[in-house]
Amino acid sequence: MTALAAPLLPSLGTGTMRATVFHAPGDIRVDEVPRPHAGPGEAVIRITTTTICGTDLHILKGDVPTVTDGRILGHEGVGIVEEIGPGVTRVKKGDKVLISCITSCGTCPFCKKGMYSHCEDGGWILGHLIDGTQAEYVRIPHADTSLYALPASADEAAMAMLSDIFPTGFECGVLNGQVKPGDTVAIVGAGPIGLAALLTAQFYSPSEIVMIDPDENRLKVAQSLGATRTVKAVGEEAVRAVMALTHGAGVDVAIEAVGVPATFDVCQGIVGPGGRIANIGVHGKSVELHLEKLWSHNITLTTRLVDTVTTPMLLKLALSGRLQPLKLVTHRFHLEEAMKAYDTFGSAARERALKVVLEG
Amino acid sequence: MTALAAPLLPSLGTGTMRATVFHAPGDIRVDEVPRPHAGPGEAVIRITTTTICGTDLHILKGDVPTVTDGRILGHEGVGIVEEIGPGVTRVKKGDKVLISCITSCGTCPFCKKGMYSHCEDGGWILGHLIDGTQAEYVRIPHADTSLYALPASADEAAMAMLSDIFPTGFECGVLNGQVKPGDTVAIVGAGPIGLAALLTAQFYSPSEIVMIDPDENRLKVAQSLGATRTVKAVGEEAVRAVMALTHGAGVDVAIEAVGVPATFDVCQGIVGPGGRIANIGVHGKSVELHLEKLWSHNITLTTRLVDTVTTPMLLKLALSGRLQPLKLVTHRFHLEEAMKAYDTFGSAARERALKVVLEG
Amino acid sequence: MTALAAPLLPSLGTGTMRATVFHAPGDIRVDEVPRPHAGPGEAVIRITTTTICGTDLHILKGDVPTVTDGRILGHEGVGIVEEIGPGVTRVKKGDKVLISCITSCGTCPFCKKGMYSHCEDGGWILGHLIDGTQAEYVRIPHADTSLYALPASADEAAMAMLSDIFPTGFECGVLNGQVKPGDTVAIVGAGPIGLAALLTAQFYSPSEIVMIDPDENRLKVAQSLGATRTVKAVGEEAVRAVMALTHGAGVDVAIEAVGVPATFDVCQGIVGPGGRIANIGVHGKSVELHLEKLWSHNITLTTRLVDTVTTPMLLKLALSGRLQPLKLVTHRFHLEEAMKAYDTFGSAARERALKVVLEG
Amino acid sequence: MTALAAPLLPSLGTGTMRATVFHAPGDIRVDEVPRPHAGPGEAVIRITTTTICGTDLHILKGDVPTVTDGRILGHEGVGIVEEIGPGVTRVKKGDKVLISCITSCGTCPFCKKGMYSHCEDGGWILGHLIDGTQAEYVRIPHADTSLYALPASADEAAMAMLSDIFPTGFECGVLNGQVKPGDTVAIVGAGPIGLAALLTAQFYSPSEIVMIDPDENRLKVAQSLGATRTVKAVGEEAVRAVMALTHGAGVDVAIEAVGVPATFDVCQGIVGPGGRIANIGVHGKSVELHLEKLWSHNITLTTRLVDTVTTPMLLKLALSGRLQPLKLVTHRFHLEEAMKAYDTFGSAARERALKVVLEG
Repeated sequence: MTALAAPLLPSLGTGTMRATVFHAPGDIRVDEVPRPHAGPGEAVIRITTTTICGTDLHILKGDVPTVTDGRILGHEGVGIVEEIGPGVTRVKKGDKVLISCITSCGTCPFCKKGMYSHCEDGGWILGHLIDGTQAEYVRIPHADTSLYALPASADEAAMAMLSDIFPTGFECGVLNGQVKPGDTVAIVGAGPIGLAALLTAQFYSPSEIVMIDPDENRLKVAQSLGATRTVKAVGEEAVRAVMALTHGAGVDVAIEAVGVPATFDVCQGIVGPGGRIANIGVHGKSVELHLEKLWSHNITLTTRLVDTVTTPMLLKLALSGRLQPLKLVTHRFHLEEAMKAYDTFGSAARERALKVVLEG
Repeated sequence: MTALAAPLLPSLGTGTMRATVFHAPGDIRVDEVPRPHAGPGEAVIRITTTTICGTDLHILKGDVPTVTDGRILGHEGVGIVEEIGPGVTRVKKGDKVLISCITSCGTCPFCKKGMYSHCEDGGWILGHLIDGTQAEYVRIPHADTSLYALPASADEAAMAMLSDIFPTGFECGVLNGQVKPGDTVAIVGAGPIGLAALLTAQFYSPSEIVMIDPDENRLKVAQSLGATRTVKAVGEEAVRAVMALTHGAGVDVAIEAVGVPATFDVCQGIVGPGGRIANIGVHGKSVELHLEKLWSHNITLTTRLVDTVTTPMLLKLALSGRLQPLKLVTHRFHLEEAMKAYDTFGSAARERALKVVLEG
Repeated sequence: MTALAAPLLPSLGTGTMRATVFHAPGDIRVDEVPRPHAGPGEAVIRITTTTICGTDLHILKGDVPTVTDGRILGHEGVGIVEEIGPGVTRVKKGDKVLISCITSCGTCPFCKKGMYSHCEDGGWILGHLIDGTQAEYVRIPHADTSLYALPASADEAAMAMLSDIFPTGFECGVLNGQVKPGDTVAIVGAGPIGLAALLTAQFYSPSEIVMIDPDENRLKVAQSLGATRTVKAVGEEAVRAVMALTHGAGVDVAIEAVGVPATFDVCQGIVGPGGRIANIGVHGKSVELHLEKLWSHNITLTTRLVDTVTTPMLLKLALSGRLQPLKLVTHRFHLEEAMKAYDTFGSAARERALKVVLEG
Repeated sequence: MTALAAPLLPSLGTGTMRATVFHAPGDIRVDEVPRPHAGPGEAVIRITTTTICGTDLHILKGDVPTVTDGRILGHEGVGIVEEIGPGVTRVKKGDKVLISCITSCGTCPFCKKGMYSHCEDGGWILGHLIDGTQAEYVRIPHADTSLYALPASADEAAMAMLSDIFPTGFECGVLNGQVKPGDTVAIVGAGPIGLAALLTAQFYSPSEIVMIDPDENRLKVAQSLGATRTVKAVGEEAVRAVMALTHGAGVDVAIEAVGVPATFDVCQGIVGPGGRIANIGVHGKSVELHLEKLWSHNITLTTRLVDTVTTPMLLKLALSGRLQPLKLVTHRFHLEEAMKAYDTFGSAARERALKVVLEG
């Protein structure tokens, strides 16, 4: 470990490492903490690239009470296998790997049906119920089913985008929205997740992708990433704009990528008969569902915590160049500069930040 | 017509007929009205059996303002083709036919994708925007795509159940709920629609079907029709009972067959991770959707106005005896006794009424 | 040809027109024949653009005995509605329309399930059992369900590609092959149909599309149209090349776009476990299916006569520029020059011909 | 082990056990062999019930050259966990378990997509490449993903039917055949696998299930198990009978449950347009596929080695009584009487044998 960290992060001793640690709402710090070790079925990964997620900001604000004092944050990342525990067979020391934001045991009934998000001994635990990836090292349980081997030449920042946001945008937005060739798709919210949905919706060749956001800069990015139309508006104004664009027909697919009642309302207002509303946003309160109108509209509404079942496919497309995850990376910091990185990401609009990468 | 009506309904003259006519909220009457004739693509059917739907009660109460003074009610029925207009090729005078509650042109984009409910020149118009089936004769536009030929021997009351409630229970509840072998299904509401969902859910061999209703008698009927469990409760008590029955796992499919916020709430409370909520109920007001809980539960919620695309399949199973629609017919009246029939159906619980049939 | 355009091309008389007529194997001629008129549900289209299909060459050789002396050939085309019969509502005189190669009544059980190819009163009848499109005028039965209205500005040669080859390549090859993002797809045969499959397979973002053909020129075209790999080989050599390219795994989807036992054999040889073989080719004889090997390989093999159910979607993508059908048009002739056009298309390899268009 | 075997099979010593061992084609014997032990991720199961499969007869005849001298036969069974190796978490000593005929690692790409049959470190290996279940004890690799815990009260002979034949009939026949409510299904071959397909096809409520077999007794059994029609014929005669029964339409689903060219031919002859041929049979030679007829028939043909992904669902239905696997058990022997059991099963028609159970 000395060898590794030396040029980067002078550590206090062999058994410790630097990590971004949550202490209390509003209080996270880069601390010196003990290094993890690998038990049966586990691996320890030396993090080379990690990133900050909107969920980390929620944790910082105190919105996720299951995160307690002392927890290392972070559920995304790429690194090198440092140590494997007994029983691990699919990765070995020295392999470059992608860490899934979802840990899956591979044997429980949920895992067996590909719903890793609800794994009985996993799910979203990294940087939540167990220590996470914003650290020099991270311990990954169920390593054989929760890590993906990468070619040594794979770009690490690009790959780190596949830990969470790309599977999330794709599975919760695009797959659940059943995007099909020729469809009209609207995405409400042009943050990183909405943009990941935008990029992956194009796997299915919709004829229109309308991006809706009040932020001019993000809409410009959306346009450069394939949005065929943009709507700079919120609420009823956004609904009217989309209905006008679609000549009153509404959209085939409305993807909610924000997580508040107002954006969900836009989705309800623009979905056409037979259409789908695919919710990605993490909601803190209930919404009003207009069944008095929608009961007869033959719509489908889905929710989903990402399962990361499509990670192998996304990796294939990213490695072949068909998917370009780097387009979402706007800022890079050193792991040690995590506080600065959180500040930047926390003022995303002002900083024109999409994904902020931390490198080891 | 004389031949037909003679033994049954003495008419005032050749050009008139008896029909149940809406005049104002609370005011429907059996009137003498002009007989319809068939234009291009249309057929006139001499009604032999029709029935009253929950929607007719809503109309009677004034809940459906698009129904105006003078409208003949009814959107279900079986009869004999009396007259066909130019261009009709799939039915001929004298055929016994089933009338679909949904009229479909067969050529608009919605019809082409099997979403007849939103047909640009049809949908639910019978007994709503055009005169309906609670009459001696009814005019059916787009006859080739809106009628189904029946064998002469087919039981008429049984077949009339396929105009609306069986396709509705099956398409909106069972198909949209994606009922699969081994599933645990809950149906909230043991009225005719809920019971039609119960009977057709069994096409897919779920391992459990839990019927939820406060009415003891209806639960007994449900048991005799294949419910494996019954829950005589509403609201939170119903939720607790179902969660106990499923050992906390919740159900795979929750079918809403009532149409009020409280029953929708039960569905939200009992659906397990990865489960489906299939709404059938006609809702008069919005509901509160608990996205703050459900966003991560990987659920699917569907709404649907019946398309009647499965009518040919349902007919096949009913004619072969595998589906027994007659089990839902509890009362029979003469067309002329429509007022009495409405009274009975309007006091369904007290009268132990499920479907009330009117015969010509 | 002078004759043809009356306002454009002075005709020999009001009641006649020029048309490419089959007389006997090897004997087709451009003849003066009576002009058709529209009966109930029918339309007469003045052809502005038509094209020649591989099937027409088969007819010319005498391989399709159901085509008899006097039959006007052609089942593809674009034109202007000249006359409509009673009951036609979705197109009107003067509309520019696309003619589907498949005629569908819209009311039979096959049409109701979207399998227009087996329509009880349609299917592939144009230029086969009734007169076709290689003429100044053509009569189209079931006009409302067999024609598609086009914007006046639509490019006619591009649109004519949607009568047959694009729906065929897409439905029989891509949809039946269940092409998915990240898949490895192989297409055996780089003729117009194989190339249509190549272009439409890209709607689903496979990671590799391997084109297999012995013709160097066609492979170059394939490369320019999106093939990621090409294999210039046939038979066992082609199999070995594909297995090497896929490191022994075989392909996810093998699309057969030729129609002879040897090319079907290649498909069997390269399909991996869990893969699909989608047959498009018109086969004249049986093939040997290696069930002794494939029984345990979890493969799916499909056949299909195009249904043209995806025509509306293809039109949308072509009109929005996402699909560029013109890329397959290599030669253009006047309708009057049909014999020359058949010669060119009949020597496709030598002439480097893909689709040969006839213009009115 | 002494405790266990004492009343049943007097063993030569603690470290040995009795097992049915293949030595050469035509030469299998009940031998005394060493008892297995559990390595990492493995479990040793004390067999209480096992059974003989058609595949075992093929092995006995020498048709499966990968089975070599000394191999213990058998890939089906139920027993009690005797020993678990390190890392096994989902079963524990003393649990009653069902052994899947397919071993799956749960972590390879094939397992991750539910195609356990092609597991990179498993698949069909029991009684084939590693020692099998026709023994007092069997070692099961990848125990967490290859065993299913059973309630202590579960009927063992019934459960043993879920090791192979029920998942095989269901997955390869019914699921691949996409049996739907109202369908007409034909099953060619009324042996145990065909009968398992017959029982599980009923999960989807087809309107007709036609059973085809030359053996009168088996057809009688089929009728008692739900076949709506039986055809006692082979080859062209069977085809004619089915086409007559379906008024020339052919069937929606043809399930091949024998594995020879003649029975495959029947399937080709009876499948209607849009229909599916689901092959279950293990074929020793290639078949002639009539693409010259089928190319335009919109059919789907599938092959599959059972994946046993539906085992949890089948267990649920069997435990709830909706599926009654015992109906296929006709004979029971002691493990020690394996030779007699093979004789009986080898003369199935004469002995009226379906499944022959061996009990420990």
